[in-house]
Amino acid sequence: MTSVIVKANVNIALIKYWGKRDETLFLPTKSSLSITLDGLGTTMTLSKSSEDSLKIDKQTITDEKAEKVLRFISLVRSLYGISDHVAIDSQSTVPVGAGLASSASAFSALAIGLNALFSLNLSPREVAMLARRGSGSACRSILGGFVLWNKGILDDGSDSDAVQLFPETWWASLRVMVVSISTKEKIVSSRQGMQETQKTSPLYAAWVASDEPLLPKMQVAIERKEFLTLGMLTEQSCFGMHATMLTTNPPLLYWLSETVEVLNSIFAARATGLPCFATIDAGPNVKILVEQQHVPALQALLHNHHYTICSLGEGAQVL
Amino acid sequence: MTSVIVKANVNIALIKYWGKRDETLFLPTKSSLSITLDGLGTTMTLSKSSEDSLKIDKQTITDEKAEKVLRFISLVRSLYGISDHVAIDSQSTVPVGAGLASSASAFSALAIGLNALFSLNLSPREVAMLARRGSGSACRSILGGFVLWNKGILDDGSDSDAVQLFPETWWASLRVMVVSISTKEKIVSSRQGMQETQKTSPLYAAWVASDEPLLPKMQVAIERKEFLTLGMLTEQSCFGMHATMLTTNPPLLYWLSETVEVLNSIFAARATGLPCFATIDAGPNVKILVEQQHVPALQALLHNHHYTICSLGEGAQVL
Repeated sequence: MTSVIVKANVNIALIKYWGKRDETLFLPTKSSLSITLDGLGTTMTLSKSSEDSLKIDKQTITDEKAEKVLRFISLVRSLYGISDHVAIDSQSTVPVGAGLASSASAFSALAIGLNALFSLNLSPREVAMLARRGSGSACRSILGGFVLWNKGILDDGSDSDAVQLFPETWWASLRVMVVSISTKEKIVSSRQGMQETQKTSPLYAAWVASDEPLLPKMQVAIERKEFLTLGMLTEQSCFGMHATMLTTNPPLLYWLSETVEVLNSIFAARATGLPCFATIDAGPNVKILVEQQHVPALQALLHNHHYTICSLGEGAQVL
Repeated sequence: MTSVIVKANVNIALIKYWGKRDETLFLPTKSSLSITLDGLGTTMTLSKSSEDSLKIDKQTITDEKAEKVLRFISLVRSLYGISDHVAIDSQSTVPVGAGLASSASAFSALAIGLNALFSLNLSPREVAMLARRGSGSACRSILGGFVLWNKGILDDGSDSDAVQLFPETWWASLRVMVVSISTKEKIVSSRQGMQETQKTSPLYAAWVASDEPLLPKMQVAIERKEFLTLGMLTEQSCFGMHATMLTTNPPLLYWLSETVEVLNSIFAARATGLPCFATIDAGPNVKILVEQQHVPALQALLHNHHYTICSLGEGAQVL
């Protein structure tokens, strides 16, 4: 095989990931739980080539982002004793570096693509653990629907895997409204931000300890399709993470004014009986959990914002 | 004496107060430290009358706010065996209920006024402890400059007093720019909000524990007039408190879009070398610590916002 085309969707964490227990192996301090979104992600062509290269949206990239990708390809080569080089041609339907999980879908596509191109014959579980080495949350985009990323306890990370939850059910009426507020790249990357939080936030340990019990509760809510519980737990985890960011020294504030405007709209809507819940990552954009039947009311409320409405998406795949 | 006129300034907490260890006696879970501001506050005329009444800005008030004031007058009557009733005529230079400490200056004025009107002969320390029973942070407005409100450890609250710090020095070049973002009354009062936070935030205990060590550090910074340390500690305490609000269930967000706009302006200004620091209370308005020589640069930055610039203010006084 000299060329493959792959596709991976972004995923949004409902139970958040913020902080590593191992920087080299990308092992998290806590387990997280995400939803893979349909229609937002990365399509990537990987071709054997005389040297490694990266194009994003037809532009050759040589910056820090490219280095991260090329380092990952080198890692895969060294892990599996490969000598081939790869030309990457990536097309993204999400803006890069704006807290819209672009690196999750990109490294997920890259991992599944290299597995195919180099005929590594890795299982989905192994591909997910490989993707994790490029960008932690990328392991969750290998799978579809609701995905649990286990933190694991082993030093070598061999138990820090990703599993799809309740694959036999599919919450077809669930929607995520992704409100795009700014597509400017953030000043402090997630990788750097979480390091600073772990080092300086006096609330970090208390957050990790208090967030962990949300995970089994959320699994029950997903299995039973209990929307209000799902939403409430999602906001708890989200604002817990942002609380640790705010108490980082110096403070980490990824929000813009429109972020708070949308948040206040959601809280006000909920007070009038419209069930919708917010989650925000390391960027200004707001993702809103809502059930299909309430989408029109939410659209009316947010008519002067830019948004995309997503359903549950499939895992990464070779096309 | 049948009538007195008194005046009290607002105060802004640099080390925050959020949560009570005793709801009846208004005893806080932690000590706090504030700065009394010149020019923003309450002027109040108290007159003996046939019944208790309250006017704010010439309007007779009979709502919840009035009840709070009348309850306080009754408390003072019962504590000191007084039978007289009082007509209150209050003029405020700060909007009510918008996190601009209007109740601090109001109850501070009320306490010092009743002390004079009823000839209670209380010392300033006793007046401060009395003011605390109306609104916790009011005890800090009795005094000028930098004020420490000791949490105390006794059940009867007799050691939860307010003291002026370093009264022999006066940080004359310090300014607080009060950016007025909304004067609408907040939906969740401070009293209710802090109760909900104490009950539901999993980060509350960790915040209290991590915030307490900031206090002695700030006292040193004030004594030495070390502006950068003062500002950094101020932001730490502020964002720690807001972290506990955000992790309240349901989340407590007192910010509006303009709050974040101003915060991001401050962070950006600081990155370019302009020393200024933010603090926010239970409302959307932002107070900015800055030294006199940097005020013009800050004014240029915030030219399309409404603001007032304050210096250190005196304590409450009988005029």
